[in-house]
Amino acid sequence: MRSSARLAQELLAEVMAIRAVDVHSHVPAGEPFARSLRELLGYHYYTELAHSAGMDRRVIRADAPDEEMIPALLEGMSAIRNTVQYGWLMELARELFGFEADALTPQNWEPLADAVQSHAARPGRAREILEQSRIEKVFLTNNFHEDLGAMDRELFVPSLRADTLVFSLSDPAVRRALERVSNVMVSDGETLRHALGAVVERFVRAGALSLAISLPPHFRAVRAEGQDFEGPLGRAMAGWQPEGGDAVALHSGVLFALAGLCAEHGLPFQIMYGALRDAYEHGVPQGTDLPQAGDTLRGLLPLLNAFPEVTFCLSVLSESQAQELASYGWIVRNVVLSGHWWYANVPVQIARDLAVRIQSVPATKLIGYYSDMYKLEFGLAKFNMYRRVLAGVLARDFVEAGLGTAEQAVELARRLLRGNALRIFGLPG
Amino acid sequence: MRSSARLAQELLAEVMAIRAVDVHSHVPAGEPFARSLRELLGYHYYTELAHSAGMDRRVIRADAPDEEMIPALLEGMSAIRNTVQYGWLMELARELFGFEADALTPQNWEPLADAVQSHAARPGRAREILEQSRIEKVFLTNNFHEDLGAMDRELFVPSLRADTLVFSLSDPAVRRALERVSNVMVSDGETLRHALGAVVERFVRAGALSLAISLPPHFRAVRAEGQDFEGPLGRAMAGWQPEGGDAVALHSGVLFALAGLCAEHGLPFQIMYGALRDAYEHGVPQGTDLPQAGDTLRGLLPLLNAFPEVTFCLSVLSESQAQELASYGWIVRNVVLSGHWWYANVPVQIARDLAVRIQSVPATKLIGYYSDMYKLEFGLAKFNMYRRVLAGVLARDFVEAGLGTAEQAVELARRLLRGNALRIFGLPG
Amino acid sequence: MRSSARLAQELLAEVMAIRAVDVHSHVPAGEPFARSLRELLGYHYYTELAHSAGMDRRVIRADAPDEEMIPALLEGMSAIRNTVQYGWLMELARELFGFEADALTPQNWEPLADAVQSHAARPGRAREILEQSRIEKVFLTNNFHEDLGAMDRELFVPSLRADTLVFSLSDPAVRRALERVSNVMVSDGETLRHALGAVVERFVRAGALSLAISLPPHFRAVRAEGQDFEGPLGRAMAGWQPEGGDAVALHSGVLFALAGLCAEHGLPFQIMYGALRDAYEHGVPQGTDLPQAGDTLRGLLPLLNAFPEVTFCLSVLSESQAQELASYGWIVRNVVLSGHWWYANVPVQIARDLAVRIQSVPATKLIGYYSDMYKLEFGLAKFNMYRRVLAGVLARDFVEAGLGTAEQAVELARRLLRGNALRIFGLPG
Repeated sequence: MRSSARLAQELLAEVMAIRAVDVHSHVPAGEPFARSLRELLGYHYYTELAHSAGMDRRVIRADAPDEEMIPALLEGMSAIRNTVQYGWLMELARELFGFEADALTPQNWEPLADAVQSHAARPGRAREILEQSRIEKVFLTNNFHEDLGAMDRELFVPSLRADTLVFSLSDPAVRRALERVSNVMVSDGETLRHALGAVVERFVRAGALSLAISLPPHFRAVRAEGQDFEGPLGRAMAGWQPEGGDAVALHSGVLFALAGLCAEHGLPFQIMYGALRDAYEHGVPQGTDLPQAGDTLRGLLPLLNAFPEVTFCLSVLSESQAQELASYGWIVRNVVLSGHWWYANVPVQIARDLAVRIQSVPATKLIGYYSDMYKLEFGLAKFNMYRRVLAGVLARDFVEAGLGTAEQAVELARRLLRGNALRIFGLPG
Repeated sequence: MRSSARLAQELLAEVMAIRAVDVHSHVPAGEPFARSLRELLGYHYYTELAHSAGMDRRVIRADAPDEEMIPALLEGMSAIRNTVQYGWLMELARELFGFEADALTPQNWEPLADAVQSHAARPGRAREILEQSRIEKVFLTNNFHEDLGAMDRELFVPSLRADTLVFSLSDPAVRRALERVSNVMVSDGETLRHALGAVVERFVRAGALSLAISLPPHFRAVRAEGQDFEGPLGRAMAGWQPEGGDAVALHSGVLFALAGLCAEHGLPFQIMYGALRDAYEHGVPQGTDLPQAGDTLRGLLPLLNAFPEVTFCLSVLSESQAQELASYGWIVRNVVLSGHWWYANVPVQIARDLAVRIQSVPATKLIGYYSDMYKLEFGLAKFNMYRRVLAGVLARDFVEAGLGTAEQAVELARRLLRGNALRIFGLPG
Repeated sequence: MRSSARLAQELLAEVMAIRAVDVHSHVPAGEPFARSLRELLGYHYYTELAHSAGMDRRVIRADAPDEEMIPALLEGMSAIRNTVQYGWLMELARELFGFEADALTPQNWEPLADAVQSHAARPGRAREILEQSRIEKVFLTNNFHEDLGAMDRELFVPSLRADTLVFSLSDPAVRRALERVSNVMVSDGETLRHALGAVVERFVRAGALSLAISLPPHFRAVRAEGQDFEGPLGRAMAGWQPEGGDAVALHSGVLFALAGLCAEHGLPFQIMYGALRDAYEHGVPQGTDLPQAGDTLRGLLPLLNAFPEVTFCLSVLSESQAQELASYGWIVRNVVLSGHWWYANVPVQIARDLAVRIQSVPATKLIGYYSDMYKLEFGLAKFNMYRRVLAGVLARDFVEAGLGTAEQAVELARRLLRGNALRIFGLPG
């Protein structure tokens, strides 16, 4: 029998080598990697953590020159050197740009800034980063009216981001954009479904393989039909911001219409559940949202029940929902568990949630991880973090727990990092 | 000082040898073990997990012959080889039937099916299984109108399953059955208490040692007295299905009446709290329930406070309640913590909850585990899983944490596996 | 590379030696240490756990003589030898009083009782205990009308306990006491703020460095202004006990007024969130409170948002809130995470919560631990427990997780045990 430490080492080596598929990111197809160190440091994790640790918000104002902003931000970041988020930065700086110091400081950032800039100019840079990261494909999230023509289809897969359609339909600009891209005047449920159908068809023609939406923790899906939906929709189309029951009916109605289109086109629906938007009033941009304890996935059941043929890839933020989600994956056929996200994207937290999934959910229903990144460079560090956690959990909670051999563990890792994503989204393996 | 690995090995050997008492199961006294492989594979864990992983529901229809159903189900189960539930099946097949392959497949199931059938014909088979499982007694859960005459009292202990009485009293068939077994016409609270009293007395005479009920996560106990209870009861007796506050009052009133009978007869009340029934609309039979995050044990406090002399053995499903339950065991004198159940019955989850209990709850208030099984064979695999987890937690979170010696750890394991159950239910040790 | 076990040992040795600052206790300045064994055993952990395990409540009645009460309590405590709380007692008995047996029993308690009594008579005993405990300063919690003159300022730091002011203002005795110490007649919001201002000023002059309050799990902070606050306040001043919305407005209004005074005086506000008071009706004194699952920190957001310049040191009880709290520390600039408290003060629970904090929250925003003790002796055992857990988490989830070196781990431990407390409360380092 292999010793514990040796088993862990062997699994780590195998798992680190597995090429991943990244099913959710915010990478912009036109500018997929960072042109400057400032773009890397502008990732909200660094600005919000440095601000939370005491850095003045004005440090990161748009018109502050690099020479002023970068050292001040790095000064602020000295308080977060313990965090895994800081660890991501150091790992990508080392692996992608040859940065060798243990910490990035107001004194040593300039060579790294030069390296980021010079590497950005290399031809085929996006492909090079993904190669070094052992990532094969990256899903993007695209607004419904976005031009999908320009992206490199060998690297990127578009997804329709549905948030604006579901939550901002009463905004006249959104309504006009929807009517423009769909060529449909929206006046009621039927014309809305036509308009949404045209949007989804445009995405499918452009190679989109899923819809994606972020739902707040208090969101409850209800089957709103007939006048229950037409009433709020009509008022929203007239420019009224819906409230209370009207808002619930309108948002659910649009969500159900989109799920119906997923059914029609065989598209999985990716749902991120649990971010309370704009909860903290004094945060930096993108640093004002929080998770919320105490909520339950039960609010999604009407949606999951109504579309048994649609695969819902669910992600959650709160720990109590993480355990609930494992049970949903175990029982609810059209639920796939997807990744470890945002506030739950911390190694010890991932390890906990992952161990339960591996011990109780069918192996075919687990999408191990996605990056949620804004620039490609972070995929390297985030996926490497996940691969390390995965190898540790497989050693301890799968092989040593007697549930399988080391070889089966590696096979399982391959499903979590790529195989399941390829199958679920219909990508060529 | 022993090395960590050596300590863990020594504790494992000791703990594996401890004979257990199983305080909750659904084993039918007349058919306690499986007559066929199909009965083993029909355990809802396998059908629901295989269905969740994509197997067609029609595979398991009652009229499908074994030769068709078993290979198709095993095909579906190939997706769940990672799970502990699959591990149970392999362990019992190996230990009880000499099955030697690593997986059960459409190609190799027939010899196992033959072995299950031939072993079932052995005289004293129930006793033989329990002997191999190191299980001494198994509690059953019996409907209030069930014949209790035929069971083997050396192996089995009856318990009154109270769900139907509490939740289905307005069903005329239930009412008639209650009146028949009790010889009491139920017309108000007083006659209801007489009828329930007659039921409990019949169970006590038959050797029952507890009442048991499963409560949904939203259940709230209220003290409903006088007209608050008589009104809903009268309407239920007239055949009206109670709703809203009426339902709360009726269900609580019956529950309180039963708790009063526990007090009178010195019976513990086993409460499983947290299963949301029929939540998933498209599941296989027995595969439609889910846990629910976000609820609190606070809803049981009125009941716990009203009957300080009744021992309530509580089990919970959600992770947040698991921590809450440890505090209840610490503070509330009449609360005993009982087992790790259903969706929480996963090794890493058990380990987490158990470590908190061992570090903070009186040793005398912990019933370590029960099987919840439908056929005796599963007791072997489930209790062995628990014994392994228990040994690991005792090594790491008790001995290495400095809370006691290895000898004290084994003593603690003995309490959790048998001693506390014997004392709490008044069985001869 | 160091082996895992060796790294853990090295970190443990270093962390055990760090002198701590204890930012929250209930130590009475005049009688800071135990005069008798009975005082030590009277700590609610022992009486409530022994009672929960079956000890008769009358054992601990005030008029029972030591010779009767102590053996009976110790008999009851035999059921809790597995717990960490029992471990505290054994560790302090050994370290502070030279007690050598493995357990404290009805047979061997008398020499320990003698030792407690004789040690209590030593000059400089408080300082001696703190020296042995490697604790440098202990914060007290003082009632608003308490005499602050007598305490030893080298060892103790006063804090204003705000519970009575926030929750009992309608009690005429509280009102009179407030008017007496403040020399202000309270008739409306303005005079209330003057009175509270006078109280806080008196505390600041006496060297107080914080306010502290315990909030129930259902507490929701609302901005109550104008007549929304003046109405309920007027009725409370007339002696009416507020209810429903009135209570919410009154309690929130006073809390906001106190937070405003924190802002004015640069004082941190320590908030313990989550104890449900008097939940269990049959408990021993101080043994009737429980945690409650399912609640969220969201209820505090209006307060946190309204006073961005006030540092709120938050502690929580429930596991779901523990993860939420880490995210608050990550995003909300004026939130500091403070300690592991009461029902969450159990080694495996601390380890879990701490690992998430260390991997995702700025190092400067973590106050590792406080004792919450009533007598100084418990600080030794509680802080040593924490130091051991901290060393283990740093080895496994920081150094081995690749987030820093062993030296950085020790530096982090120093921040958690003392550095952050010194800086946040403005103590001389």
